[in-house]
Amino acid sequence: MHYGYFNGTIAPTDQLAVGTTDLGLLRGYGLFDYFLTYNGRPFQWDWYWERFQNSAQRMHLPLPLGKEETYAVVMDLIERGGGADTAFRFVMTGGYSPDSISIDRPNLLILTEEIHPVPPVQYEKGIKVILDDYVRDMAEVKSTDYKRVILMAEAIRGAGASDLLYQKRGEISELSRSNFFIIKGERLITPNRHILHGITRRTVMQLAQSDFRVEERPVLLSELYDVEEAFTTSSTKKVLPITQIGELTIGDGHVGPKSKFLLERFNELVKNW
Amino acid sequence: MHYGYFNGTIAPTDQLAVGTTDLGLLRGYGLFDYFLTYNGRPFQWDWYWERFQNSAQRMHLPLPLGKEETYAVVMDLIERGGGADTAFRFVMTGGYSPDSISIDRPNLLILTEEIHPVPPVQYEKGIKVILDDYVRDMAEVKSTDYKRVILMAEAIRGAGASDLLYQKRGEISELSRSNFFIIKGERLITPNRHILHGITRRTVMQLAQSDFRVEERPVLLSELYDVEEAFTTSSTKKVLPITQIGELTIGDGHVGPKSKFLLERFNELVKNW
Repeated sequence: MHYGYFNGTIAPTDQLAVGTTDLGLLRGYGLFDYFLTYNGRPFQWDWYWERFQNSAQRMHLPLPLGKEETYAVVMDLIERGGGADTAFRFVMTGGYSPDSISIDRPNLLILTEEIHPVPPVQYEKGIKVILDDYVRDMAEVKSTDYKRVILMAEAIRGAGASDLLYQKRGEISELSRSNFFIIKGERLITPNRHILHGITRRTVMQLAQSDFRVEERPVLLSELYDVEEAFTTSSTKKVLPITQIGELTIGDGHVGPKSKFLLERFNELVKNW
Repeated sequence: MHYGYFNGTIAPTDQLAVGTTDLGLLRGYGLFDYFLTYNGRPFQWDWYWERFQNSAQRMHLPLPLGKEETYAVVMDLIERGGGADTAFRFVMTGGYSPDSISIDRPNLLILTEEIHPVPPVQYEKGIKVILDDYVRDMAEVKSTDYKRVILMAEAIRGAGASDLLYQKRGEISELSRSNFFIIKGERLITPNRHILHGITRRTVMQLAQSDFRVEERPVLLSELYDVEEAFTTSSTKKVLPITQIGELTIGDGHVGPKSKFLLERFNELVKNW
């Protein structure tokens, strides 16, 4: 059973519910964060907390709990779940509003969820993504605004793809819920703007440091034509190879050794977390 | 007491609550509509229903209820509220999601709410708005995305203003939750794109037909310098004069006779609705 926390109360998540004047629900005014635990410990907790705090600040929402208090709630929820590894979703909204628009005080949810791992075949074959002419508004804030990818779900399925790769005026930013990397020789390159600064992205850049020259900079569509490998990173995707972007085949269309190497490094890290 | 409907159940609104896997809450995937009743009858019901249906279609959400069924719910809620005039808020989200991203079936809320009328002084003196370099994504769909105005609440207050007037590359679209009109002589002009097609806007254009030349077309910032009057329209604002836009005073800074005339026409219409 999954447990969650809502404004001071801990209960099974299916017993938690949010009233109808919540500004996340009525006005899309909400932010979130998402991480996994490994060996019963939250992965990269300091970095996630820092990002959550930044998102809250950028959205002018005061955090109802401090870092230590929140960590205590997280550990409590892990224990109640029997200590097994789980996904955590933090959701903070503008809270209950007296007039459907003004903020009084935020609502904070801390939910544990089942982990939905990527099907192994996707690591073996890589995934296909399709290009989408879009850039997220305030991409660096982890707001709850994911309208675009849900709206495009049919288009993604119709193309036999797994996700969108956002680009605007020829500059690539990110996938709908994960970051983007390309490999050219010893260079590992990832976009530096109009993106959410992923924690897995940051972890992978750190892991790659000794074997690659890591470049954070604008990445253009025109650069895709001679990349050797491409992959995407997120908490659940880890290092997931991309072998096709629209009609373009990446490298020879197979998962490349460098992506595999980085995935292995990542798996080693979390195994001993 | 206010009553509401949620997926087939009618109850006092403070007893209705939405589970934590709702895609409106988690992913901002929701749309809504909002209207008032006059003399116990929904104002411009056919037009509101048409718009709600269009928004739902644009967001690929099948409506759980047809027009007649929905009307029956609306009338039931009016009766339970003792027949007094009320505000209705329809909210439809992507529903409960098995994996926080895929749609199963929508959640539909039909809520009655207290009407928050504009303070009379605003009709006497007009309001101030400030310009904001922004345009709503999919403005013509009444999605729940109102992050921008909540984020800008402090800036609005700090400027002694009531709202934002969105403009992008010199072209005006709308206020954060209402439409925009200017008057030059016998011409009543309102932007035609990047806007939500307001029902009050449509009503006012219809009412104005016999006394004005109504123009729906792009409106440029540069046109503001010689307008006589400006106003905004919405369900609750009706025809609300704008006397200041940023540092620019509109006309002589007082509420003009043509805005007053249109407000009177509107008030007559709803009085006899």
